[in-house]
Amino acid sequence: MRKTLKLGKLAAAVTLTTAALSGSTAFAAAKSPTLSEADFETAKTLYFQRCAGCHGVLRKGATGKSLLPEETLKKGQKRLEKIISYGTEGGMNNFDDIFSKKEISMLATYIQMEPPVPPEMSLDMMKKHTKEYVAPKDYPTKPLHGRNWKNFFVVIERDAGKAAIVDGDKHEIVAHIDTGYAVHVIKGTEKHHKDAKPKYDVGRFWYTIGRDGKVNKIDLFQEPEKMLVAETKMAYDARDIAVSGDGKYVIAGGYWPPHFVIMDAETLDPLKVVSSRGINVDGEYVNEARVAAIYTTPNESTWMVAIKELGQMWQVDYSDIANLRIEQMDTAKFLHDGFFDPTGRYFQIAANASNQMVVVDTKERKLEKIIDVASLPHPGPGANWTDKKCGPVGATTHLGKGEVSVWGNDPINHPDQAWKLCYTVETDGAGVFIRTHPDSQYVWADQLKHPEPEVQQSVQVFDKDTHKIVKTIRVTEEEGKAALHMEFNQDGTEVWVSVWNRADASNPTGEIVVYDAKTLEEKTRIKGLTTPTGKFNVYNRMNHKT
Amino acid sequence: MRKTLKLGKLAAAVTLTTAALSGSTAFAAAKSPTLSEADFETAKTLYFQRCAGCHGVLRKGATGKSLLPEETLKKGQKRLEKIISYGTEGGMNNFDDIFSKKEISMLATYIQMEPPVPPEMSLDMMKKHTKEYVAPKDYPTKPLHGRNWKNFFVVIERDAGKAAIVDGDKHEIVAHIDTGYAVHVIKGTEKHHKDAKPKYDVGRFWYTIGRDGKVNKIDLFQEPEKMLVAETKMAYDARDIAVSGDGKYVIAGGYWPPHFVIMDAETLDPLKVVSSRGINVDGEYVNEARVAAIYTTPNESTWMVAIKELGQMWQVDYSDIANLRIEQMDTAKFLHDGFFDPTGRYFQIAANASNQMVVVDTKERKLEKIIDVASLPHPGPGANWTDKKCGPVGATTHLGKGEVSVWGNDPINHPDQAWKLCYTVETDGAGVFIRTHPDSQYVWADQLKHPEPEVQQSVQVFDKDTHKIVKTIRVTEEEGKAALHMEFNQDGTEVWVSVWNRADASNPTGEIVVYDAKTLEEKTRIKGLTTPTGKFNVYNRMNHKT
Repeated sequence: MRKTLKLGKLAAAVTLTTAALSGSTAFAAAKSPTLSEADFETAKTLYFQRCAGCHGVLRKGATGKSLLPEETLKKGQKRLEKIISYGTEGGMNNFDDIFSKKEISMLATYIQMEPPVPPEMSLDMMKKHTKEYVAPKDYPTKPLHGRNWKNFFVVIERDAGKAAIVDGDKHEIVAHIDTGYAVHVIKGTEKHHKDAKPKYDVGRFWYTIGRDGKVNKIDLFQEPEKMLVAETKMAYDARDIAVSGDGKYVIAGGYWPPHFVIMDAETLDPLKVVSSRGINVDGEYVNEARVAAIYTTPNESTWMVAIKELGQMWQVDYSDIANLRIEQMDTAKFLHDGFFDPTGRYFQIAANASNQMVVVDTKERKLEKIIDVASLPHPGPGANWTDKKCGPVGATTHLGKGEVSVWGNDPINHPDQAWKLCYTVETDGAGVFIRTHPDSQYVWADQLKHPEPEVQQSVQVFDKDTHKIVKTIRVTEEEGKAALHMEFNQDGTEVWVSVWNRADASNPTGEIVVYDAKTLEEKTRIKGLTTPTGKFNVYNRMNHKT
Repeated sequence: MRKTLKLGKLAAAVTLTTAALSGSTAFAAAKSPTLSEADFETAKTLYFQRCAGCHGVLRKGATGKSLLPEETLKKGQKRLEKIISYGTEGGMNNFDDIFSKKEISMLATYIQMEPPVPPEMSLDMMKKHTKEYVAPKDYPTKPLHGRNWKNFFVVIERDAGKAAIVDGDKHEIVAHIDTGYAVHVIKGTEKHHKDAKPKYDVGRFWYTIGRDGKVNKIDLFQEPEKMLVAETKMAYDARDIAVSGDGKYVIAGGYWPPHFVIMDAETLDPLKVVSSRGINVDGEYVNEARVAAIYTTPNESTWMVAIKELGQMWQVDYSDIANLRIEQMDTAKFLHDGFFDPTGRYFQIAANASNQMVVVDTKERKLEKIIDVASLPHPGPGANWTDKKCGPVGATTHLGKGEVSVWGNDPINHPDQAWKLCYTVETDGAGVFIRTHPDSQYVWADQLKHPEPEVQQSVQVFDKDTHKIVKTIRVTEEEGKAALHMEFNQDGTEVWVSVWNRADASNPTGEIVVYDAKTLEEKTRIKGLTTPTGKFNVYNRMNHKT
């Protein structure tokens, strides 16, 4: 029938249509400098390791600028080498102390070439990485070590690729567990809403996510040498993980491929992959739309999934994963990390490059409000308490400014103060983490982003009532070390602060300094840790004590 | 602080990680034959026009096979030219009557080269295409032409890039309206559930989607020359469109870019774009995951969006598009076209390459059942009626077999028959469309896919009670013409059948043949149409009469 079909008017329309379909591979790399295959591979590895976090593997930019050839070729080799070596005032760090001159040269060339597109990772590939070290049928029915596991701290030893288990009662390291490379986050099972009937004790199992996408399951009931019970890999580059409120599923989010993966929490068997590629809040397609963070919703059978480059929060319902319900909320770019209000209804997350905090109503599954704060908010675990004037408040530190922003977060009983800045507290330096406890009079903020060692090695403590800094604590004075990340112990009587040994990261010369939460005096130091970073107290995390 | 950071163990992990990040652009086209830039552009246009529908613009295959260089280079130029010229037994048609020898040679070479990736289309680009021909404030408040617009037929004149408006009472063509290229579907506003309060009369506005992504809005109250009231463009390649039940939004689905776009139904202003790229039911990422079909859910504030390559049905809720709720249901590949059951609760859609019908429960927003049928089901508008034995039933024709499959579709009152084959009817030839009406004793099926002109020019009619063919109607005997697509008129007394003039597609020598729905005798012929394809009776479509 098609035999003598004539195109007529139609051909013109098709020509118009396909004129838009220009080949993207055809015109590449004409003017670009080149590298040998070996140098290209080296530069690719260095770029992935040190640059992709801010600029993206596809180099389209996110927190950092676009490094596509159309931008970099204009600057040229020499200028690029200078920027990489000495940084910029726009926020780019210097790298002359990390990379050799040859490496800087290779990287400057590499970023003038077309970015290679990394491969995808299918569900079948993930399944091949799944390993069982202890079969669920052999899980102990009670703790085998006689310790108070609810006051354990699970501690990221970042540059060792390990997680340490520390006994909070005895201030003793119980185990160092091999995990994925540069673990970013560890999440445990959490106390959930009344409908949930978890099979195992809440807070018993902990799940790590490495930057290499490796997922490990830790059983705190086991003898120390057997605590690693299962493993899988769900991406080449990843950042966050969470457990479902019923303890049935684990979800992990990939930077590359840009997707999240739902796994069986018992076996880590990957069950479902969902792409996070999509259209951003400006209406543009983003291939590298990365999953920045994932959280278990306390009162709903959902996870909050932050899609960084899209500026979208996705509320993912795990009650039926074969018919997966997702609310895709338009919020602000670039989403990073967040925390719940004390009721568990509202989720407060930093849209760091927008200098905003985004608030989601997880009950209505929609955007509640966007709050303007200071430069590059970063709350880490966040802090909630009750202010005398504003009622319940939440707060964040900032990567770009020595300031803590405090806003009302109780729209039901304090509607006039809700989602408005209540006050700010000036600190000596920009920081990464803030923390408090319901029984504490104080709020703690670190200052990790300040360039001066003295500030970087100190944390500041302010009073919930006076809003004044009551103490600046120099946690360490050793060269090449920095203080970061606070966590309270089970009963809220101690505050643990990490000391990073970044200048000596191949040795276990990092430590945790334990302070009395009331007197703010040092109690003890737990030594023998490698770049201790995030610390997660089992009891506080399972009960959302913040 | 990073100053003297050492990589240690960590470097090994990164090497492992990035070893997987092989460049996809680096190793292309080494052995591939090449074309001149001009021939490449010509071949790209021809491929897009004639091949991409089945094989995909990225050539990874869908209904057709993968045409990536790794497959095509093995076959080589000569074998590829033969396949394109004469087709295969696997279902590939011959193209020696459509393409010249030079074109076949260019195409055989083109498919051995790396496929060019077409560009994206942002929301801003779409907005620039939006045009208003008649301002909503100037819309008439009643029909200006004095005709019975509820018995209008909106008819696709495919190869003319037009839609015809035909007066069903008078059998007269009212207007030929310029639309996008090769309009695939036209949808009107529909009668919706009781909560909806549409601003305008239901069935008044019709929306066309061209294969070039152009969207046109037609106002049936206008004088013929003013019926085209607005226009936009939402993709380079598109297939389906639907209106929201409340008449507020229009949604259109793109083949490329693979996305859907929600527009203001009044102005066609594009409001939101959602990517359909994702992970298919086998757990693999699909870049070219095309929106095959979109339907308005009669009883819910949602659309059913079929993502062909993913094998997923997405139920998209339009009640809050800034917090867009989607249920992503794993079903079967490759989804194509579907229809609702008479209650409007169940949606029945062909997964054609799986030889299955997928049933979705739109109330529970989940997969209900998958039914095995014959080769390549294709229901078009579909058909529902009540069978003496099985109770309410649905039915489909097949592209791959001369058979109508009939299944029970009333799980509430006929659970034993629901979603099981009730019976099949053998027809003379494979077809594309099936149709009936609640007041009719008969079901009509076309046979467009049969190679013999005599069969292709005939439709068959069977009795709902006896399940026997009662009449084979030779709709046309003219060389180069074929019969397809049936539609009842407003009161169900007539059946309209299209006659395609594909061999003479640049002239208006196509026609619609009108039959008496009871006697099955010819009543009249409506001439002067160019390749009339889908026909949509305003009253039947707005009331879901099938």
